[in-house]
Amino acid sequence: MREVFHEQLDSIFLDLADICGRVKAAVHLATEALLTGDIDVAERVIGDDVAIDLARERVEDSAFSLLSLQQPVAGDLRTLVAALRMVTELERMGDLSVHVAKIARLRVPNIAVPAEVQPTISQMAEVAEHMVDKVSAIITHRDVAAAIELGRDDEVMDRLRRLSFTELLSDDWQHGVEAAVDIALLGRYYERIADHAVSVANRVVFVVTGENPAAVSSNP
Amino acid sequence: MREVFHEQLDSIFLDLADICGRVKAAVHLATEALLTGDIDVAERVIGDDVAIDLARERVEDSAFSLLSLQQPVAGDLRTLVAALRMVTELERMGDLSVHVAKIARLRVPNIAVPAEVQPTISQMAEVAEHMVDKVSAIITHRDVAAAIELGRDDEVMDRLRRLSFTELLSDDWQHGVEAAVDIALLGRYYERIADHAVSVANRVVFVVTGENPAAVSSNP
Repeated sequence: MREVFHEQLDSIFLDLADICGRVKAAVHLATEALLTGDIDVAERVIGDDVAIDLARERVEDSAFSLLSLQQPVAGDLRTLVAALRMVTELERMGDLSVHVAKIARLRVPNIAVPAEVQPTISQMAEVAEHMVDKVSAIITHRDVAAAIELGRDDEVMDRLRRLSFTELLSDDWQHGVEAAVDIALLGRYYERIADHAVSVANRVVFVVTGENPAAVSSNP
Repeated sequence: MREVFHEQLDSIFLDLADICGRVKAAVHLATEALLTGDIDVAERVIGDDVAIDLARERVEDSAFSLLSLQQPVAGDLRTLVAALRMVTELERMGDLSVHVAKIARLRVPNIAVPAEVQPTISQMAEVAEHMVDKVSAIITHRDVAAAIELGRDDEVMDRLRRLSFTELLSDDWQHGVEAAVDIALLGRYYERIADHAVSVANRVVFVVTGENPAAVSSNP
């Protein structure tokens, strides 16, 4: 009975890693749409989000029936509840990619991000995509060390966000209010994707160690 | 045994309503700080957020021990898992109020919102605060009808957000990029508070009826 339970639990974690893969694709394509102004790619990100929502529902259903039928306690219970929370955050990361794609779509045939800010936005997108990719591996391998490491990527993201503000608030800014607002919101979306990635990674740490990352990293 | 369980479950819902009250105060004071440039009020919102975080931890601990010790099934299980999700969203609404307070603090001794946009921002804040207040009552009374109604307030919020964009992107805008960016982000924060309020209300509908709001409102 417990063996069946753990097989089903593993299968839920595989589903979570699979959703992470879909989110990574969403972040990647949304950024492509943003930097090239390709409306078809933007529409694809927006349309594909339904698949992430459905995958989230499947994980929720599996987790609920496991909770109900197997009545796990202690670590197993903690793991299942964590899975429920992780899937909510992964879905949200998908939604945030859709927000990026919608800004891209809104500005077609133009490109929302002026050339001089493209390096910063493109780096933010890269960091976000890279973090989502790492989270997928962290979930698959229950990798506590990598989860704790992820905080560093998040610091890079924070620095890039501050840089983007410096750029759009400088006296040299010549792209008007609309582009500035787009960039401020885009920065917010990528930053939130990164925040959720860290949060999902932290839940993996909690699942494996029973402690929060701060406690784990201070007790090596 | 089951009676004790339901008493403890009720007590968790009282705690959720209590957190809602704190969030309401945070939204209210953050807006006051924003519209008056009062740094003490801004600092108070930022400092008080710790109490919301601690209250969230207490709810999580209670819900976990109930899950572990009582092993609820069916409706009781659904309710407890919903409570865990609701408390995460309520905490997030507190964080968003802190973001508003931080924009207020950043611009002291000035006021972040130019006079001509204050009516719109102030209405957004009012709608958000009102929605949080309603959510508190919805949680306390498990009020499905009021929860479904809350979607209408959210439509008002969406209209106000669009209005704020119209204002800051108009040719008459004379307050520069910084104020525009502040307002775009403020709009996003209030909008997200409203989104979370709707989501918490929807979870109450699910707890009471076992169905999602769309299904309930189409089967009156």
